[in-house]
Amino acid sequence: MKRTIFNDEHHDFRRMFRNFLDREVVPEFPKWEQQGYAPHEFYRKLGALGVMGFDIPVEYGGAGPTSYKFITIMTEEAALAGVSLGNYGVTTGIVLPYLLALADDEQKRRWLPGCAAGETVMAVAMTEPGTGSDLAAIRTTARRDGDHYVLNGAKTFITNGSQSDLMVTVARTAPVDADDRRGGLSLFVVDTTSDGFEVGRRLDKIGLKFSDTCEVSFSDVRVPASDLLGEEGAAFSYLGNNLPRERLAIAAGGCATARAAIEHTLAYTRDRQVFGKPVAAFQNTKFVLAECAAELEAAQSMVDKAIELDDAHQLSAVDAAHCKLFSTEMAGRVIDKCLQLHGGYGYILEYPIARLYADTRVSRIYGGTREVMKTIIAKSLGL
Amino acid sequence: MKRTIFNDEHHDFRRMFRNFLDREVVPEFPKWEQQGYAPHEFYRKLGALGVMGFDIPVEYGGAGPTSYKFITIMTEEAALAGVSLGNYGVTTGIVLPYLLALADDEQKRRWLPGCAAGETVMAVAMTEPGTGSDLAAIRTTARRDGDHYVLNGAKTFITNGSQSDLMVTVARTAPVDADDRRGGLSLFVVDTTSDGFEVGRRLDKIGLKFSDTCEVSFSDVRVPASDLLGEEGAAFSYLGNNLPRERLAIAAGGCATARAAIEHTLAYTRDRQVFGKPVAAFQNTKFVLAECAAELEAAQSMVDKAIELDDAHQLSAVDAAHCKLFSTEMAGRVIDKCLQLHGGYGYILEYPIARLYADTRVSRIYGGTREVMKTIIAKSLGL
Amino acid sequence: MKRTIFNDEHHDFRRMFRNFLDREVVPEFPKWEQQGYAPHEFYRKLGALGVMGFDIPVEYGGAGPTSYKFITIMTEEAALAGVSLGNYGVTTGIVLPYLLALADDEQKRRWLPGCAAGETVMAVAMTEPGTGSDLAAIRTTARRDGDHYVLNGAKTFITNGSQSDLMVTVARTAPVDADDRRGGLSLFVVDTTSDGFEVGRRLDKIGLKFSDTCEVSFSDVRVPASDLLGEEGAAFSYLGNNLPRERLAIAAGGCATARAAIEHTLAYTRDRQVFGKPVAAFQNTKFVLAECAAELEAAQSMVDKAIELDDAHQLSAVDAAHCKLFSTEMAGRVIDKCLQLHGGYGYILEYPIARLYADTRVSRIYGGTREVMKTIIAKSLGL
Amino acid sequence: MKRTIFNDEHHDFRRMFRNFLDREVVPEFPKWEQQGYAPHEFYRKLGALGVMGFDIPVEYGGAGPTSYKFITIMTEEAALAGVSLGNYGVTTGIVLPYLLALADDEQKRRWLPGCAAGETVMAVAMTEPGTGSDLAAIRTTARRDGDHYVLNGAKTFITNGSQSDLMVTVARTAPVDADDRRGGLSLFVVDTTSDGFEVGRRLDKIGLKFSDTCEVSFSDVRVPASDLLGEEGAAFSYLGNNLPRERLAIAAGGCATARAAIEHTLAYTRDRQVFGKPVAAFQNTKFVLAECAAELEAAQSMVDKAIELDDAHQLSAVDAAHCKLFSTEMAGRVIDKCLQLHGGYGYILEYPIARLYADTRVSRIYGGTREVMKTIIAKSLGL
Repeated sequence: MKRTIFNDEHHDFRRMFRNFLDREVVPEFPKWEQQGYAPHEFYRKLGALGVMGFDIPVEYGGAGPTSYKFITIMTEEAALAGVSLGNYGVTTGIVLPYLLALADDEQKRRWLPGCAAGETVMAVAMTEPGTGSDLAAIRTTARRDGDHYVLNGAKTFITNGSQSDLMVTVARTAPVDADDRRGGLSLFVVDTTSDGFEVGRRLDKIGLKFSDTCEVSFSDVRVPASDLLGEEGAAFSYLGNNLPRERLAIAAGGCATARAAIEHTLAYTRDRQVFGKPVAAFQNTKFVLAECAAELEAAQSMVDKAIELDDAHQLSAVDAAHCKLFSTEMAGRVIDKCLQLHGGYGYILEYPIARLYADTRVSRIYGGTREVMKTIIAKSLGL
Repeated sequence: MKRTIFNDEHHDFRRMFRNFLDREVVPEFPKWEQQGYAPHEFYRKLGALGVMGFDIPVEYGGAGPTSYKFITIMTEEAALAGVSLGNYGVTTGIVLPYLLALADDEQKRRWLPGCAAGETVMAVAMTEPGTGSDLAAIRTTARRDGDHYVLNGAKTFITNGSQSDLMVTVARTAPVDADDRRGGLSLFVVDTTSDGFEVGRRLDKIGLKFSDTCEVSFSDVRVPASDLLGEEGAAFSYLGNNLPRERLAIAAGGCATARAAIEHTLAYTRDRQVFGKPVAAFQNTKFVLAECAAELEAAQSMVDKAIELDDAHQLSAVDAAHCKLFSTEMAGRVIDKCLQLHGGYGYILEYPIARLYADTRVSRIYGGTREVMKTIIAKSLGL
Repeated sequence: MKRTIFNDEHHDFRRMFRNFLDREVVPEFPKWEQQGYAPHEFYRKLGALGVMGFDIPVEYGGAGPTSYKFITIMTEEAALAGVSLGNYGVTTGIVLPYLLALADDEQKRRWLPGCAAGETVMAVAMTEPGTGSDLAAIRTTARRDGDHYVLNGAKTFITNGSQSDLMVTVARTAPVDADDRRGGLSLFVVDTTSDGFEVGRRLDKIGLKFSDTCEVSFSDVRVPASDLLGEEGAAFSYLGNNLPRERLAIAAGGCATARAAIEHTLAYTRDRQVFGKPVAAFQNTKFVLAECAAELEAAQSMVDKAIELDDAHQLSAVDAAHCKLFSTEMAGRVIDKCLQLHGGYGYILEYPIARLYADTRVSRIYGGTREVMKTIIAKSLGL
Repeated sequence: MKRTIFNDEHHDFRRMFRNFLDREVVPEFPKWEQQGYAPHEFYRKLGALGVMGFDIPVEYGGAGPTSYKFITIMTEEAALAGVSLGNYGVTTGIVLPYLLALADDEQKRRWLPGCAAGETVMAVAMTEPGTGSDLAAIRTTARRDGDHYVLNGAKTFITNGSQSDLMVTVARTAPVDADDRRGGLSLFVVDTTSDGFEVGRRLDKIGLKFSDTCEVSFSDVRVPASDLLGEEGAAFSYLGNNLPRERLAIAAGGCATARAAIEHTLAYTRDRQVFGKPVAAFQNTKFVLAECAAELEAAQSMVDKAIELDDAHQLSAVDAAHCKLFSTEMAGRVIDKCLQLHGGYGYILEYPIARLYADTRVSRIYGGTREVMKTIIAKSLGL
């Protein structure tokens, strides 16, 4: 179905960004996958394009409030080009919103221009070995010592952990209070060149090879008190405020990858001959791809609607949960079916479908698992 | 997600129609199911409401061009009330468009006011024993005899066959031409009180008990030449012109029935106790209903978008195929899961979920099967 | 795959029983569906065949211990012939085991010969309006009065309720004891010609039209104390002892109906022409039926193995749960796909596939729902 | 369900092999994955165990005809231990049968003792860039030159290509004959130390990192005429003769990996706490694992039955297709669900479930795709 959310400005942006990808990313991408991260240079190029500054106020070098449609376009074009945007999503979609919401003017002046320029790459350090989604179990401590806090502890599953310049870190500034399990946690913006900050083991993942996921540790890391983000002890209330947008982003990614999978498979099956005719000529191929296309249309309709709601500041947590649940499940089904139509080639990573398969499995998990989404939706139904 | 296609006029209409259903249909509906049809009286009441005249020009007693949103509302409210609209959909959604598109002024003057008033109930007679979707195989003949055509033949699968006043009938006015298999077919508007027209066996169906599906036969039925609809020999080109709207209607019905199924199941599982707690308190119940809700949101987003496209006269055959395929498959899955959550009660027809299960299975078939939808979509993908 | 559980004796029995069905049941079956029950005459004919006496000791007119393979054959042949065995399964598979396990010699002498001859048709009355599977909530009372018990109460969902001669009935002989919620229940074999026993409303079901499902009520029904079955107050411990066999029977039925569905669909799709070739010639038809066949092979392998375990008295409750869960889910999927391949004809009850669809939905519910099976299996996994 | 195909000899073998894996493979396995192959040393150890000699006649150092049950046990134990057997399956299950079936006595004397001892590791070279399953399109040539054949061409997708000592290679000894597209192909046992044989690019796969998949090329490779396998020109008739056993092996692998996935997930979910209780305590976890277990039981019942048929030399191509189709699809579903229950950890390759996910996707493709299996089954249904 004709998509109705984009206007000429968006189409121009799409063309521009596609050229950028073809020129700057496609030739480099195999190296990113091999080394396990996108280079800082890439984020600086994105900064030059202006896309690192989305939502950053103009006075701090940014583009001001920006429709999510632009990022959607970037996601779609990357998927079609068979590459990724490195940790663009983490730095601008997950970490930046904390700075925008919580940093005071002085902090914004220090941090935001670097973000907008793509000079400053960021990560967030929340999960600890054994805590999972139970934030009250966090053990990393931040002890006040004069003008500094002294951080000690270990974190795991840190996306971008080895490549970030600033790391928004959750630490305990007061012991667990049985009456208020949510209290006592604070946020710090840790400079990763600080003494005592160390990047540990890299976790080897099924896919997403272009992105590092690390353990990091803090051993008497001294963080200036001026790098406390928001109120001391109030971290719990800050966490998750941006989840609807984050889940919308994952949902939009689901549509983008499914669409890319279908396109790659159309091309492959038209080209590939078996038993004297193209794979595309078999009824099974036609029907499987038609099922995929119909599922994608449904998901895209919902996600496009959600993007409009987001533009109007009306996207609810439940809306986002619907989008994330359905779109990532849909992408999982579509990509699996498309891989199958590639036969043995679908298992070889030089074919984009193989990379999509390996990369997207985690989308049903991160940003809130399938099960968490169902719990949110069930609550909205009064269950 | 908040639906965005309805305005205050629509909300008022919804309230009015819900009252109408509660007052006029809910108490009568069990009788309709028992006798196997909705009474003529019902269509006259719909006529009095004005809804039989949707799309009928004002000069013939109708409401003029009407957004499909109103019929969507009717469909949704009927599903929630646990009833149906009899063969409203057949008469206004399938048969009426032939008259609107093909009747000349004199014919419109004769037929449309009765339609708008709900006095004239209609059916369409296409399928013959053994022909299925292959229209070229039609054997019913219409032989010209002076000012009349004389019809002979048999039709089957005629929805509303025993209850209609006028039956749009496809018959062969010229023998099959090997070079033009699509030629030689004509449309007639047959008065069902004519001599020689006979209603045969009623087909017993899995569900849709409130609607009759019959065999009918024509034995030297004399039809005035003035009741030929459109050009003689041109019937083939007329057929299927209204399919996108018809499929959109079925897709909207899929959403409406899935929504009703979820509502009924929420009510049932909150009320029903097992092992000392409501069924709704089990995680399985929550997760299953959350899956259903997410699927429905996706389908509804797509169908709502298609309704807007239809309002703008931009709904393509492919758009409608996407909607019909996904929405009816979704409804099948949702209703099956909801039935299961009812336990044994889900199999008893006095529970609305049981009726929904029995009634909706055919929606994946009629108006073009799942397989036909996939074929249409595959073609649009270049396959 | 070649089935290995049947020997020549079984093959002979299969031929004999197929002939019996063709001769005695196929011509009568439409009448059973119309009237809503199989006539007593049918059970007498089964008695004459010897199959009512399976597992009944020879001294009471039965065949002695009998392999379940014979009943499996009966189930399979009935499904292939497009008919059912009425309530054979209820009377011999559900009720009879109570008599065999609990009746004393005197009772056996009175009851079993009639059962073996097919003279005595039976039902079981457990569920009450509002109790569901929570037996402790049973409210029907049996008050001792001299040589009799006086029963008062109401039951619902009684299969064969209007047609049975004897009804094994659960009633409360002592009030609920908060410390022993399972105590106080007793079993009675109620003669349905007794004063005060009344058959109430018949429940209208999605399918299984050949079998009645009723409400029944007991108003001061006097039951001789000699018709108490087992110990007074011990009913709870008796219930469910035969569930593994009962669930194996439903699982075997799942395979039998899926096999019949595939056979009917092979025949239909070979015969039916669309667009100039048989439906069977389309790759989609081939692939869908191949998926169905593979699923059936897996289920049948498991069920056949379970039948051998049952013969060796080694079938566990967990084994039966695995079989019931997988086989009925498989049958649901297979029958739905096979119906679809019939197009519109699949929705018309004169086609066997339509009846299979309507009849088998309840198999995922009765004898323990899908959810109960999963609970049993999860426990066996230590969850 | 209790498995019935194993006796005490098998149980002893299982214990012995489990010890072997724990001692010899588990500590080494991470290195295999890193380097991309299992070392020759491993096969020599397997030779010392006797398992390389299965089916090799005693006179050539083997164990004589051997039930497939032993290999099944090896597969199961490897999956549970979270390791693989390197390319044991390729060398003994795919290549060896060609030697056993086609080698003459002299050749057997030369080749089989090394195989039985695990000294000789083997591969098969069939697929060429662009040929896929269409063997008639093979372009590698073998030109007779005195006592030798001279091979030229390129092959791809060669499992074990960089590690094998002998490579059974299909080459064209006569040009394509339009009247007999299957003629002109011959098999050669190529010594991989020959001049002109070269290992090319390694293909990077989604999983199966412990096994190499390569391109290889032949540039004027001189192969002694005594290394021709079978009749010149008859290769086509030799290919695929062992496919039923090969597919049974993949089906058995499907069960083994699904079982391992369930075991790993039971352990993980019992251990892992979320929201104050183990993941295993949630109803969703219980139900999902119960579904997995039931599917596995069905597949295992079928595969075990097929193993018995194979022992009795009665396993048909269709039987094997049923097993391969259902078992690999089942494993795909089970492993995906089990990964999800691990949350984010499921995506990290140090968890066995992640490796299972990445490794098993190809099982629905290799040895004959899902689509090929359906085609075989459909033919057996007369479609």
